[in-house]
Amino acid sequence: MKNLSLSKVYQLLEPGPVVLLTTAYEGHANIMTLSWHMMVEFEPPLIACLVSNRNHSYAALWATKECVIAIPAVKLARQVVEIGNCSGRNVDKFERFGLTPAPAARVAPPLVAECFANLECKVADTGFVNKYGIFILEVLKAWTDPAQKNPQTLHHHGYGKFVVDGEIIKLKSKMR
Amino acid sequence: MKNLSLSKVYQLLEPGPVVLLTTAYEGHANIMTLSWHMMVEFEPPLIACLVSNRNHSYAALWATKECVIAIPAVKLARQVVEIGNCSGRNVDKFERFGLTPAPAARVAPPLVAECFANLECKVADTGFVNKYGIFILEVLKAWTDPAQKNPQTLHHHGYGKFVVDGEIIKLKSKMR
Repeated sequence: MKNLSLSKVYQLLEPGPVVLLTTAYEGHANIMTLSWHMMVEFEPPLIACLVSNRNHSYAALWATKECVIAIPAVKLARQVVEIGNCSGRNVDKFERFGLTPAPAARVAPPLVAECFANLECKVADTGFVNKYGIFILEVLKAWTDPAQKNPQTLHHHGYGKFVVDGEIIKLKSKMR
Repeated sequence: MKNLSLSKVYQLLEPGPVVLLTTAYEGHANIMTLSWHMMVEFEPPLIACLVSNRNHSYAALWATKECVIAIPAVKLARQVVEIGNCSGRNVDKFERFGLTPAPAARVAPPLVAECFANLECKVADTGFVNKYGIFILEVLKAWTDPAQKNPQTLHHHGYGKFVVDGEIIKLKSKMR
């Protein structure tokens, strides 16, 4: 894994990929699948994401205020869906789905070694958690896997229908 | 334009497309380009989106508490970028970019007739506006254009680099 400048994190999340969110709590690491996230600030990168109190990860995120957002490429599509179909209540998801937890530098939850990007996050604001389940995260450190060139991400349209990244187009823009 | 069930709105926004946001204020309709949005609730559909007070649309959204989120397909890529490169302060964007404002049913801001989906929204919560520019929107009515079959959306990676929707894959999922 190679360090990624925090100023470039938005380029990973702004396109709306399905992501995995890892937590560590009471001796157990867990993973959930998540598509409800958005960028909030460029640098330091702030991310809003929705973790409902119906998700097993909620208690861990609330108690520890730490997580990792890991971005899978299309080769992990099957695992991404299956992670969303079961609960950390009764499954060790890293073990069941053959994913490798790797130590993070700044937080306790693990990176997912098979993902092409991993973002170490702390919870920066809980003001909208009770009302909407919206956590505001600050990215403390970001990693990318240089061995995964041009990873194609997944975009969820509901009920296991995903659109995979296709053609890239470049237009002259003043927009960051 | 055909009515879309509010229960299906998340299937349009969860995949993270670049969208247009229209407002109407003091006799002028305006459009901005926006990628920082996420779903917050399925039904009634709630959307979080970030409109900074540096955006000309901010004053209109704040004052009127209404907007339309219009979703463009790839054929509008050039306009999407150019809309993001200029300001409603000194440009009538509908006119300059040849887009057609169409009357909405429940709100004053116009639909964008060339977009394949249009979501009429009211601001439901301003509690995070001052701190982050995050508006919580409720979708009141949703439209799709049946003439645009399988529209390919745009996903922004920064500086005018877009990934266009590619292959569709379907996996057995319990996830809505």
